[in-house]
Amino acid sequence: MHSNRGVLIVISGPSGAGKGTICKALLEKHDNIYISVSATTRSPREGEIEGVNYYFLTKEAFEQKVNENGFLEYANVHGNFYGTPKVNVEKMLEEGKDVILEIDIQGALQVKENFKEGVFIFILPPSMEELKKRIIKRGSETEESLMTRFKNAYKEINYVSKYNYAVVNDTLELAVSKVESIIAAEKCRVDRIKENTILDSKEGLIHEQLYD
Amino acid sequence: MHSNRGVLIVISGPSGAGKGTICKALLEKHDNIYISVSATTRSPREGEIEGVNYYFLTKEAFEQKVNENGFLEYANVHGNFYGTPKVNVEKMLEEGKDVILEIDIQGALQVKENFKEGVFIFILPPSMEELKKRIIKRGSETEESLMTRFKNAYKEINYVSKYNYAVVNDTLELAVSKVESIIAAEKCRVDRIKENTILDSKEGLIHEQLYD
Repeated sequence: MHSNRGVLIVISGPSGAGKGTICKALLEKHDNIYISVSATTRSPREGEIEGVNYYFLTKEAFEQKVNENGFLEYANVHGNFYGTPKVNVEKMLEEGKDVILEIDIQGALQVKENFKEGVFIFILPPSMEELKKRIIKRGSETEESLMTRFKNAYKEINYVSKYNYAVVNDTLELAVSKVESIIAAEKCRVDRIKENTILDSKEGLIHEQLYD
Repeated sequence: MHSNRGVLIVISGPSGAGKGTICKALLEKHDNIYISVSATTRSPREGEIEGVNYYFLTKEAFEQKVNENGFLEYANVHGNFYGTPKVNVEKMLEEGKDVILEIDIQGALQVKENFKEGVFIFILPPSMEELKKRIIKRGSETEESLMTRFKNAYKEINYVSKYNYAVVNDTLELAVSKVESIIAAEKCRVDRIKENTILDSKEGLIHEQLYD
């Protein structure tokens, strides 16, 4: 096992807050950050690639994986299933890689129950007006599903209190920089260092710490 | 009162770990970070300026301030008193300034009792050998006080578990960057945002959060 286990970073928040853009920027900038590719039963949008954007599963295949306890979390969002395959995430963390989960709030709360050491970041839109604009701009929704998304987004803002961090996605650069700071800071947290025994193994301080 | 209260950052750790150098670099780089100038009863070292490095007080004046409850913390270190005047720190935090306290471990633990919202950062030397070199290099100590400092530094490393963050001062640039990340991340912490009502006042979300 790698001496420094990676950090699981859960990027979540209401639909349209800009989670995806932030994750994309993080992945481009950092070699040690990996994204967990989710599985879904929804149809691919234009340009989406199997195994890159999502693993596109039939409902039957998805249910089988659920029964095998193969998801870190899964949820039914707007009538489609989304889930995070467990085995990939565990493997990457053990190899010392930082793993980002970009998931909706229902999923994040499930992960929180199982992964207390995860870092839970809630992405907030700059304002609710801006959130509306972004959801409309996405343009791949029927009017009915748009209304559902608006209402859900309003409700979902309240879940910020369940998270460790809140980042307002006002400008992309600033939001990305805040998430970078959060990851760097988390690696310095004493509770996390104790778990990972960084101080013991890496900094060569075990002897001096124990020897008094 | 300023809507965003500043963050109190306590930079602490064993003598010789490089706390002072890190604080100096932070102050030079950031306009919104202020250092709390301590009071002390020890004699000024060469080049130290009253009101900049320390407020140099007589023992009598120091004791009077203790009796007036005028210190955030105070301690007897190697036979001299050091203390953090309370009123200046409070004023700066209320004005939205981030305040650094560079203090020894005894002092930091006192501050922790009174200021739970403080951010407690423990600066670690790259190794105990390096720590010895740094203490010797400082060269303003008698041989006896050197030995006392060595022994204290060894014991003090154990106090890392009482802190929120540990930063190994391997290279100055990296250590400073980690402290900067910690400060930026703390400003995104949901617990802190709730206290400061940043979400309510600044992001204009209060209505939307309450309105469901």
